[in-house]
Amino acid sequence: MKPADPHDVRRHNLSLVLRALAERGPRSRATLSAETGLNKSTISSLVAELVDLGLVCESGHERPGAVGRPAQNVELDPRSPFVLGLEVNVDYLAVWAADLGGRVLQRSFVASDNRERPEQVISRLELLAREALDEDFAEGRRVAAVTVALPGIVDDLGGLIVAPNLHWEDVPVAHMLSESLGPVTVENEANLGALAELTEGAGVGLRDFVYISGEVGIGAGIVIGGDLFRGARGFGGEIGHLTIDSYGPPCPCGSRGCLERLAGQDAILRLAGWDSRIRGPGSRPEWPGAMLAESAREGRAKTLEALSQVGHTLGIAAAAAVNLLNPEALLLGGYFAPLTEWLREPIENELHRRLLAGDGSGCAVLAARLGGEAAVRGAVALSRRQALDDPAALGAHSLSVVG
Amino acid sequence: MKPADPHDVRRHNLSLVLRALAERGPRSRATLSAETGLNKSTISSLVAELVDLGLVCESGHERPGAVGRPAQNVELDPRSPFVLGLEVNVDYLAVWAADLGGRVLQRSFVASDNRERPEQVISRLELLAREALDEDFAEGRRVAAVTVALPGIVDDLGGLIVAPNLHWEDVPVAHMLSESLGPVTVENEANLGALAELTEGAGVGLRDFVYISGEVGIGAGIVIGGDLFRGARGFGGEIGHLTIDSYGPPCPCGSRGCLERLAGQDAILRLAGWDSRIRGPGSRPEWPGAMLAESAREGRAKTLEALSQVGHTLGIAAAAAVNLLNPEALLLGGYFAPLTEWLREPIENELHRRLLAGDGSGCAVLAARLGGEAAVRGAVALSRRQALDDPAALGAHSLSVVG
Repeated sequence: MKPADPHDVRRHNLSLVLRALAERGPRSRATLSAETGLNKSTISSLVAELVDLGLVCESGHERPGAVGRPAQNVELDPRSPFVLGLEVNVDYLAVWAADLGGRVLQRSFVASDNRERPEQVISRLELLAREALDEDFAEGRRVAAVTVALPGIVDDLGGLIVAPNLHWEDVPVAHMLSESLGPVTVENEANLGALAELTEGAGVGLRDFVYISGEVGIGAGIVIGGDLFRGARGFGGEIGHLTIDSYGPPCPCGSRGCLERLAGQDAILRLAGWDSRIRGPGSRPEWPGAMLAESAREGRAKTLEALSQVGHTLGIAAAAAVNLLNPEALLLGGYFAPLTEWLREPIENELHRRLLAGDGSGCAVLAARLGGEAAVRGAVALSRRQALDDPAALGAHSLSVVG
Repeated sequence: MKPADPHDVRRHNLSLVLRALAERGPRSRATLSAETGLNKSTISSLVAELVDLGLVCESGHERPGAVGRPAQNVELDPRSPFVLGLEVNVDYLAVWAADLGGRVLQRSFVASDNRERPEQVISRLELLAREALDEDFAEGRRVAAVTVALPGIVDDLGGLIVAPNLHWEDVPVAHMLSESLGPVTVENEANLGALAELTEGAGVGLRDFVYISGEVGIGAGIVIGGDLFRGARGFGGEIGHLTIDSYGPPCPCGSRGCLERLAGQDAILRLAGWDSRIRGPGSRPEWPGAMLAESAREGRAKTLEALSQVGHTLGIAAAAAVNLLNPEALLLGGYFAPLTEWLREPIENELHRRLLAGDGSGCAVLAARLGGEAAVRGAVALSRRQALDDPAALGAHSLSVVG
């Protein structure tokens, strides 16, 4: 019932207008007024501030040919800041850049065995990011926000606490990159994958789902009530370390028989009779899924058996998550996504058998849409969200890039 | 940015004032104005409406002895409607009544083996509820809301879908009671236990916790962001059906080796060498916990071994929940609560071993405070919440009781 702080109101309204222009494209001040419910003089003042900040510019006319004096449109300034989404995974690095509207300006995946000293890997990532900043699109533009997807749990200070499949512990990732790239946010890769699927993938329109990302490790991103759920300290979603078999193989996390030891990328390749150290063409993260799908389509018995076994194992963990969380859907991401047609039945069998609600839980098993790009797309999405939340800060905190 | 519906605003404000009086006791209109931020004439009009509805009355003076003309207080009308909280569990029935301020007017637990036909059990519950309505406190007062705690999953229409330990399926509990008691809400007992602990127990002040209720069955109630989380269809929290041992004993749910088969009340009594069919004095639901605690305190080896084994098993399931949800705390409820000092160490050992975050997850293992009363107290709390949410409806929908 108390009035809001005027500074907060101003920041909220600036964000509202910039977000409308970033997400829905060029439009007139009158349209912005109708869409936001703010009056026209407020809109004009907000637009003027966004122009001063270098975020917005005047553009063409709305509805050419319409009757009456055409309204002048405003739009995202083509020289407005852009965001970076980076990813360190077990066997690749990724660096993407996008504008505030989400248009991808640069994308690169680079094969890289990251199971070595963190300093070397982070230096390599920094070099790739600096290379992106030398591209034409970046000329004269600032970096608004940088997010790094990591295959482990992170703290709120930009540090990686542990990434068992990298054998990394306590690595101050944000600190190591910030001198070169400005303020950096780190986040778990499965959380970011879930955010990407929610924003532009198979999770659009869903309110409660569990995104399960299969790579060398297995992680989950949990969406509750239409937003990412991270847990009290941000450590939620560690489905890969659910115990499936207390007498199973040891896991680098210190436990035994964890889901990811039995259903991760290395496990399925071994079950299917392939050397897990081979690398696919171009080292795109989804290659083992695509290769296995091709082999399953050809009816190779050992592949089909491996899929059935991995589906069964994944189903046991999925049943635990669904018994606890009762989501509308499970989204299978990472290498699982292209294999969904073979994994769905064994997973559904375990859900049917193990859920108290049985089939009445109504939980659908769906393929995620963004494949191996989900985590880095989520890193871009989180960077954009941060930038659009506080337009005035885009000037104050972001790094100037001299093209 | 659009103005709220005036009816919604009025209802919200009526609720705000009634809640202040119900939860914080008698106070003046001026105090209500200061506390709610509503101006004094609005408060006067809202109080007048609450008086007309029979919910509020004028009372004594605020701050006797203070300087100046004393302000007239208003308070909950002593003849205002009351709420009922009912519970059906495996071996008892409970009927509680409370006023809108939460003061308990009547409490009864009755031993009852409910593993028989639902019609008979629900008739017995109805009879107990009608008896409560014949007590002196109910004379001339209406029933504002009725909630029934059930040991199973429920739908949004007041039906029990399945309660494996009762061997009940598809029982329209609300419908069976509504002719006699008016509109009835049903809810899972562990969800209500969590709500009670959040409202008045060990969960006060926590934002994210998992309440684990041990009875014949084991259920969980999940609190996220300071409120009960139920899942997309309300089936969340079924920790009792997490698979601990795929080759374990069959469970009435259709699966095998579920947590509640290995760590429920019957299991620990069997492990400790007691006949699980014996009943304690007065059949209060917490009796097995109290009895086992006494025996553990006396150092009986078989009891201590059973506690260690149940703690280990419970720890495996708890680790799954904590890996997924990263709560601040686990609250041990039901028969587990009085045994927390023996269960904590084996549970913490499994968390240490199985959590990716290890001890860094910061998850405390705490005894719940409300013991076997948690579910029925939660039923009362939910009834009160419903009643206080819409004061105007208290006249329209509630049942008239002729004393």
